[in-house]
Amino acid sequence: MKARFAILLFILIGASSYIVHTRQLPVVTAVSSSAAYDYEALKDKYYADHPGKGKYADLWEPIPIQQYWNPVSFYEPPGTLIGNFNAEECVECHLAINPGWVHAWKDSGHANLDDIRSLKDDDPRFYKKAKLEEIEKELQSRGVLAAGKQLESVSCIDCHAGVGKTSMQHETELKMPDRAMCGACHVQEFAEAEAEKEQKWPQGQWPDGHPSHAMDWKANVETAIWAGMSQREVAQGCDMCHYQQNKCDGCHTRHTFSAAEARKPEACATCHNGVDHNEFENYMLSKHGVIYETMGKDKWNFEVQLKDHLTEGNYTAPTCATCHFEYKGEYSHNLVRKVRWAFNPTPAIADNLDQPWFEERKQAWVDSCAQCHSARFAKAWLDTADKGIIQGLEVEQEAKQIVQKLYDDGLLVGQKTNRPAPPEPAEDAPGDFFGLFFAQGNNPSLVDRTHAEMWEHDLIKHYKGLMHVNPGGFTYSEGWARLMRRYTEIQDQNTQIRELAELKKKVEELSK
Amino acid sequence: MKARFAILLFILIGASSYIVHTRQLPVVTAVSSSAAYDYEALKDKYYADHPGKGKYADLWEPIPIQQYWNPVSFYEPPGTLIGNFNAEECVECHLAINPGWVHAWKDSGHANLDDIRSLKDDDPRFYKKAKLEEIEKELQSRGVLAAGKQLESVSCIDCHAGVGKTSMQHETELKMPDRAMCGACHVQEFAEAEAEKEQKWPQGQWPDGHPSHAMDWKANVETAIWAGMSQREVAQGCDMCHYQQNKCDGCHTRHTFSAAEARKPEACATCHNGVDHNEFENYMLSKHGVIYETMGKDKWNFEVQLKDHLTEGNYTAPTCATCHFEYKGEYSHNLVRKVRWAFNPTPAIADNLDQPWFEERKQAWVDSCAQCHSARFAKAWLDTADKGIIQGLEVEQEAKQIVQKLYDDGLLVGQKTNRPAPPEPAEDAPGDFFGLFFAQGNNPSLVDRTHAEMWEHDLIKHYKGLMHVNPGGFTYSEGWARLMRRYTEIQDQNTQIRELAELKKKVEELSK
Amino acid sequence: MKARFAILLFILIGASSYIVHTRQLPVVTAVSSSAAYDYEALKDKYYADHPGKGKYADLWEPIPIQQYWNPVSFYEPPGTLIGNFNAEECVECHLAINPGWVHAWKDSGHANLDDIRSLKDDDPRFYKKAKLEEIEKELQSRGVLAAGKQLESVSCIDCHAGVGKTSMQHETELKMPDRAMCGACHVQEFAEAEAEKEQKWPQGQWPDGHPSHAMDWKANVETAIWAGMSQREVAQGCDMCHYQQNKCDGCHTRHTFSAAEARKPEACATCHNGVDHNEFENYMLSKHGVIYETMGKDKWNFEVQLKDHLTEGNYTAPTCATCHFEYKGEYSHNLVRKVRWAFNPTPAIADNLDQPWFEERKQAWVDSCAQCHSARFAKAWLDTADKGIIQGLEVEQEAKQIVQKLYDDGLLVGQKTNRPAPPEPAEDAPGDFFGLFFAQGNNPSLVDRTHAEMWEHDLIKHYKGLMHVNPGGFTYSEGWARLMRRYTEIQDQNTQIRELAELKKKVEELSK
Repeated sequence: MKARFAILLFILIGASSYIVHTRQLPVVTAVSSSAAYDYEALKDKYYADHPGKGKYADLWEPIPIQQYWNPVSFYEPPGTLIGNFNAEECVECHLAINPGWVHAWKDSGHANLDDIRSLKDDDPRFYKKAKLEEIEKELQSRGVLAAGKQLESVSCIDCHAGVGKTSMQHETELKMPDRAMCGACHVQEFAEAEAEKEQKWPQGQWPDGHPSHAMDWKANVETAIWAGMSQREVAQGCDMCHYQQNKCDGCHTRHTFSAAEARKPEACATCHNGVDHNEFENYMLSKHGVIYETMGKDKWNFEVQLKDHLTEGNYTAPTCATCHFEYKGEYSHNLVRKVRWAFNPTPAIADNLDQPWFEERKQAWVDSCAQCHSARFAKAWLDTADKGIIQGLEVEQEAKQIVQKLYDDGLLVGQKTNRPAPPEPAEDAPGDFFGLFFAQGNNPSLVDRTHAEMWEHDLIKHYKGLMHVNPGGFTYSEGWARLMRRYTEIQDQNTQIRELAELKKKVEELSK
Repeated sequence: MKARFAILLFILIGASSYIVHTRQLPVVTAVSSSAAYDYEALKDKYYADHPGKGKYADLWEPIPIQQYWNPVSFYEPPGTLIGNFNAEECVECHLAINPGWVHAWKDSGHANLDDIRSLKDDDPRFYKKAKLEEIEKELQSRGVLAAGKQLESVSCIDCHAGVGKTSMQHETELKMPDRAMCGACHVQEFAEAEAEKEQKWPQGQWPDGHPSHAMDWKANVETAIWAGMSQREVAQGCDMCHYQQNKCDGCHTRHTFSAAEARKPEACATCHNGVDHNEFENYMLSKHGVIYETMGKDKWNFEVQLKDHLTEGNYTAPTCATCHFEYKGEYSHNLVRKVRWAFNPTPAIADNLDQPWFEERKQAWVDSCAQCHSARFAKAWLDTADKGIIQGLEVEQEAKQIVQKLYDDGLLVGQKTNRPAPPEPAEDAPGDFFGLFFAQGNNPSLVDRTHAEMWEHDLIKHYKGLMHVNPGGFTYSEGWARLMRRYTEIQDQNTQIRELAELKKKVEELSK
Repeated sequence: MKARFAILLFILIGASSYIVHTRQLPVVTAVSSSAAYDYEALKDKYYADHPGKGKYADLWEPIPIQQYWNPVSFYEPPGTLIGNFNAEECVECHLAINPGWVHAWKDSGHANLDDIRSLKDDDPRFYKKAKLEEIEKELQSRGVLAAGKQLESVSCIDCHAGVGKTSMQHETELKMPDRAMCGACHVQEFAEAEAEKEQKWPQGQWPDGHPSHAMDWKANVETAIWAGMSQREVAQGCDMCHYQQNKCDGCHTRHTFSAAEARKPEACATCHNGVDHNEFENYMLSKHGVIYETMGKDKWNFEVQLKDHLTEGNYTAPTCATCHFEYKGEYSHNLVRKVRWAFNPTPAIADNLDQPWFEERKQAWVDSCAQCHSARFAKAWLDTADKGIIQGLEVEQEAKQIVQKLYDDGLLVGQKTNRPAPPEPAEDAPGDFFGLFFAQGNNPSLVDRTHAEMWEHDLIKHYKGLMHVNPGGFTYSEGWARLMRRYTEIQDQNTQIRELAELKKKVEELSK
């Protein structure tokens, strides 16, 4: 206990004064690493094409917080504690200094595997028993677990060093768990989630593998303006959602790692809200969300598997998960198999909706909706939504032409006097995405910015409002209403700018 | 079972390949229609003045989805399934193809009438027993139910063909239940809800019968811009709230049809939120809503009748329903008996608040508030709110004059060069409502649009913020704050437009 | 009972006809006032520096509703009921006329002290037993409670006239309870809350005692524009949050006065939301809030004391209270001991973050976060947040220079033709706070207003988004995204205004 207290003291007196007395620490001999699960091997496959800093790697260096968003590429164990510890020691020490995570773990399934083993077959969580047995069989087949032996618990060492290890050298072996680490046991879920990378677009509307959670970090670090921004602390904010490619705790938060948590709509809210993808708001204000709020929170059982949501779960409306995990009646962590409009509506999609690739996915949606609605109703709604989206797209496309013409004519406000280039690798263009995150002098001009909001905020909200069946989302409040406002602003500016330009010309001629 | 499976197969292979093998279907002889409830007769009364497509009927044709928002006028049974079925057959088949609605119904009161009959008198839902008996007596008096017989359940056929029927011909008799269909049994609630149509304004401030749920479809289809818009899929979004005149499932969602659901504030949220009537947001951020969130969700019993909310329900704050269903101590589905400012503040109301019609309604509000506050406090608040609303109205009215003057002077941006007329039957006018849903060229100009938002969004939010006692709703966040912003925008544009016009004139004179 | 009925009748027939028949009322002799608690004495200390109407007192008169927000200074008992009543009589009469508050009280701890006394030591509310005994000991020491006697209940008279009194003269003694009234029993909590007034800033960044709940009324009435606005009914809206200095029911709503209520995040929502301090939204969309929503509402026990939230409370994420009540491991009603950026980011804070005063508070935050995170993670986040805030501040400061320059050059729209002074005591200045609540002619101009929103809304939201770890709060939705938009608007206007001014000059020269 004295040693423990000493560690604690050293930690608490602050980073600057960390003096590590290794001889005071208990030394636990690591179990033979050959017996332990070969995390490195699995990692190789998973990380073969991990983007790390991405193709603009030479333009930015990670700041300290980013090691937590992408531990695969950036995490370094702290050098402030030296020693080899087993799980009990982890718990004892961290209970004193960071009790929150220890309490959460102690109440989690990971810490209570016997509770899972003793589930009765009328318990909605009974399926977890089979899952545990399957995981143990898998670990046995890999030699991580001795034949016939059960996992005692999933403890600190298993996730922070490697499953099956019994101790770790804190200053060298400590890891922040990444997808592959979770995947070491949760093989099926990991494989499902990774399968999102197989997304392929028929006419190259979006890059292969996108959109997906499985490649969201790549999308993030390869977005030109985010790579180029000098405000690294603001830019890393995008990482805080775009890290699902790296970790599983975006949905199953540490250290509870609850399946029930991730089945609730709020689990999606941190990332799926706001000006350019207000899925959460649209869901919550739709009748689906209202039913969840008024009846679901009381009566639905979120411990049941998604496939049983209507029967054992008593759901009377869908959640995010029931629609987006489902594909042809099966549920998996591959959420992109029914993606159609994807990030945002474009002519390249609008013009190809009658192609089989799109038609088949639409039919898959009809089947999803038909769990609770008639197929005719579902089809009527999806047709309505598609047409409504195209109506919004037409407004945006007309505005785009106006902005492009102003740019081509050199008439955007300040275009010839005060339009600095955006930071590399971003390139100047009218109404471009960079203008949502960068502003200097008259770049972007207000017209550029307004058009950027039109296609990147309002048109997307219009589409999300329609697809989530929230009337305010695509009529008077968001979507259409905002598109009308932006269009009005652009037309107003266009007329005013051109009238002034003409007046200037007249005055110039008079001055000659 | 083979027949069932065949139907299922045909349905599942998609709309294009629906080939109906009627001979495979079980043929159930319909019960004598004279014994069944005379839905047609009731409908006649209810539908005598049903607006259908409204007075602009020649300008638009319903799109497929609209048959679900207004089944009375537009619904057609699908031609894809031919046969006569009883309720058990409905359940069996739809359990296979649309299990969601069947599960919801199976857990509903409709499917479990015996549960209602066996309620003990200390159960807060005990009142439902009497209600059921009353309904049965009513049905007996109409000959729908044999004397002395009880309803077995309220099943598919009762609502989708007519109460008391035991089977229906799917391709001809299937109905989407409308208000009158629910009203066949729920006679009292139907009558209460219909009574909203009796609303009368003392000085014609608003058309008779408005605002109300009972005439919201009429309001919808007779709104000029919505009738005239070419984007029918966007326009139908308005229907998705404005259909309470047609159906009851806006509040009591299908197929649970829960009273408890409709008593919760979220039930109102889908329609009563957003930029032009943010009642839900104001409630939730008021102390009333906070008490509901922090204490109500755990401790209040939403199964009790509204009249017992303080006693058996343990409510310690009001919900939407407790205030808006109440009038002089009684609760009914007529929600408009205390309406005063109605849709939005206008001088015609502001100038008449001291008239008895308005004073009496204000006193009715004081009485409502006095359930939990002193009458003096309630009066002080309502006086504050009225005066605060008038202060907002004054700002909007001043801005309106500026916009009108610009229009009269022909100075709105693009007014003489690029101001196409809005689509018929909408007519051009400065700052008009159409500009929130239509934009082409410079109609609306930014000033028009800004004024439209002022009176149709911000002033209403100001009023709703005050009346729902949410301080942010009428100070720094919404309401007043937005009115100040819009006024500033309009004044800025006014000065700039007029200065430029003067400059143009000078240059023109110089050019002579 | 007849007398009771008479009172009731008189009250119900409306304010204009209040005729008070005192002889019909039961006359209850007041207990010797020397035995009662000396509220007046305590009040003296508390109210010595109570601001009342503040330093701009000569500019405004309270409107009726304000007596409820600041009863200390403005409340007058109603003259409509004359008589001396005991608590039972209060309950009997008010149960008939305002049952809501009576029901809430009857279910409250105040009405059920014996329930507290009989709490078992394994009940999370067991701590309340000791608290009650402590209060009784205190009251005994003051002679309010006889030695060895227990409080029977905390009833109407105790709070509305003075603790220990057994009756009150309604028309003269009735009080709306203020902080000191609650503090008569809740001595410790009152002292903690009052201690916020001791806040001192090292370089005078903010006035002493601010920000705090304990001086929020003073901040309110001494804000120039709020004192000067002629729209008193709008202006009083600010009081509705800025009254915590006067009363405790902003968090512990009447008449339940629940501790559990105030421990929930929604309790803070009415005041801490919206365009200039969206703490609630940021919390709810952060992973902290998501965990509260998905797991906290079901599983956390809000009846436990804050200090036991991780153990007995089962919290797995922080709430508003767990972070903001905590300081160096202890919890109190002094919420400002870790305040650093306070109201909004300014250079005076940004430039001094390395001073010990700020460093120590930052370390206190690291310690708070380290309850559930590693200190290294916490430090990395707080460093990120500080730098991100400064990046936002730089954008705002650059815009500020542009606005100031336009003002100095006399070029703001309408500056020389239509810029009336704001109402006294507000003084004209570019981009000033008054422009968020006042607008007349071209004061503020759009550029002024835009800059005011930048520093008073968007920069604060940027800071709150970062500090509450909500990525959308400081990237694409709010904060940074809005700062970029506002900067763009200001730069656009700056270029357009200056180009037009130059053109005017040219035309003027040509006209000579």
